[in-house]
Amino acid sequence: MQIGTVVGTVVATQKHDKINGAKLLLVQLEHPDGSARGVPLLAIDSVGSGVGERVLVVIEGRAAGDALGRKAAPVDAAIVGIIDSVNVHEP
Amino acid sequence: MQIGTVVGTVVATQKHDKINGAKLLLVQLEHPDGSARGVPLLAIDSVGSGVGERVLVVIEGRAAGDALGRKAAPVDAAIVGIIDSVNVHEP
Amino acid sequence: MQIGTVVGTVVATQKHDKINGAKLLLVQLEHPDGSARGVPLLAIDSVGSGVGERVLVVIEGRAAGDALGRKAAPVDAAIVGIIDSVNVHEP
Amino acid sequence: MQIGTVVGTVVATQKHDKINGAKLLLVQLEHPDGSARGVPLLAIDSVGSGVGERVLVVIEGRAAGDALGRKAAPVDAAIVGIIDSVNVHEP
Amino acid sequence: MQIGTVVGTVVATQKHDKINGAKLLLVQLEHPDGSARGVPLLAIDSVGSGVGERVLVVIEGRAAGDALGRKAAPVDAAIVGIIDSVNVHEP
Repeated sequence: MQIGTVVGTVVATQKHDKINGAKLLLVQLEHPDGSARGVPLLAIDSVGSGVGERVLVVIEGRAAGDALGRKAAPVDAAIVGIIDSVNVHEP
Repeated sequence: MQIGTVVGTVVATQKHDKINGAKLLLVQLEHPDGSARGVPLLAIDSVGSGVGERVLVVIEGRAAGDALGRKAAPVDAAIVGIIDSVNVHEP
Repeated sequence: MQIGTVVGTVVATQKHDKINGAKLLLVQLEHPDGSARGVPLLAIDSVGSGVGERVLVVIEGRAAGDALGRKAAPVDAAIVGIIDSVNVHEP
Repeated sequence: MQIGTVVGTVVATQKHDKINGAKLLLVQLEHPDGSARGVPLLAIDSVGSGVGERVLVVIEGRAAGDALGRKAAPVDAAIVGIIDSVNVHEP
Repeated sequence: MQIGTVVGTVVATQKHDKINGAKLLLVQLEHPDGSARGVPLLAIDSVGSGVGERVLVVIEGRAAGDALGRKAAPVDAAIVGIIDSVNVHEP
């Protein structure tokens, strides 16, 4: 899984039936220290997260479909947790 | 999922039976601000999208096959929505 | 899916039972304009393609296994079409 | 699979039901010689590993869900072994 | 699939039950000409390969589990063939 922060939303009225009603959030992936990395991606929300929250993201189709709780949903990323803390143990 | 714009089409007369009739579109992935990133990829259309439209792309086999609505279709990317707006909340 | 050209073949006498008889082709991935990108990969042929042909490649296990038409085949890339034309619509 | 070392933990009280109770560890991937590479990722522990241990990581949804032993769990990476030794045979 | 050479072994006494007994090999991926590329990865052997042999590697969970012949095995890469020759047809 990856760490990220919800930074936006996407509206798509015309979409595949199986993702109707799903909340599409734009997530900026981050290093454990909170700095951004890479390009923001779109993830389906499964835990009631919103803009500004630090979240746990799964990036893989089966896992994302499972998060949405719909069989055969065409999704490949999902938010599956809201992160309280990241603890890095320095060696 | 990823954000992209349909930039072209691909014609392949001789193809696997399970993807006969599927519409193959060339999609340029983009940053949320609309600038291009990476190499265009080929995706199966599942929502009636066309050249010039900004779309929602899933990149993963199971998800793409689900989008096409055919079991065991050999596809790995699909267009699953037409994007109305991308809203980035600046911190 | 990706665009590529078949650039070679690989012979592997000793291989997993489930891929016996499969044709292994070396594919150079390409940009839409035909220029090479990245490292050539090995794909199972499912459409009777050969060296020099421009092809449509799926890169994902389930999809590739489906292309081969064998359940539980340990493959992760397959050629699923022979490309006639790639049409890029300049904005 | 990949080689890595557990470098931290993540706490997420609010998470998807299917991953409740799962231990989330932050893993730094490594070269065989132990030097770090890339960004630390989050993996579900399936073998009782902890901070400082060198581990075997699978990065893929089906495999990670299998490691957790729960069907339809939205996870994409898991620790599946504790490494005793890595032996590189120089040519 | 990818081309690589087996360059080492990994010992992990404490591992997930479903991969007990599996042979873990360290594989250096290669360009068709045999030069190394990227970081060595760990793959499950399914064809009796050993250090120094040039092999065919699948990198994907379902395919790797299929190679091992165990349902629900948490693996994501497997050696599925021993390569006799790679033939690149220069244009």
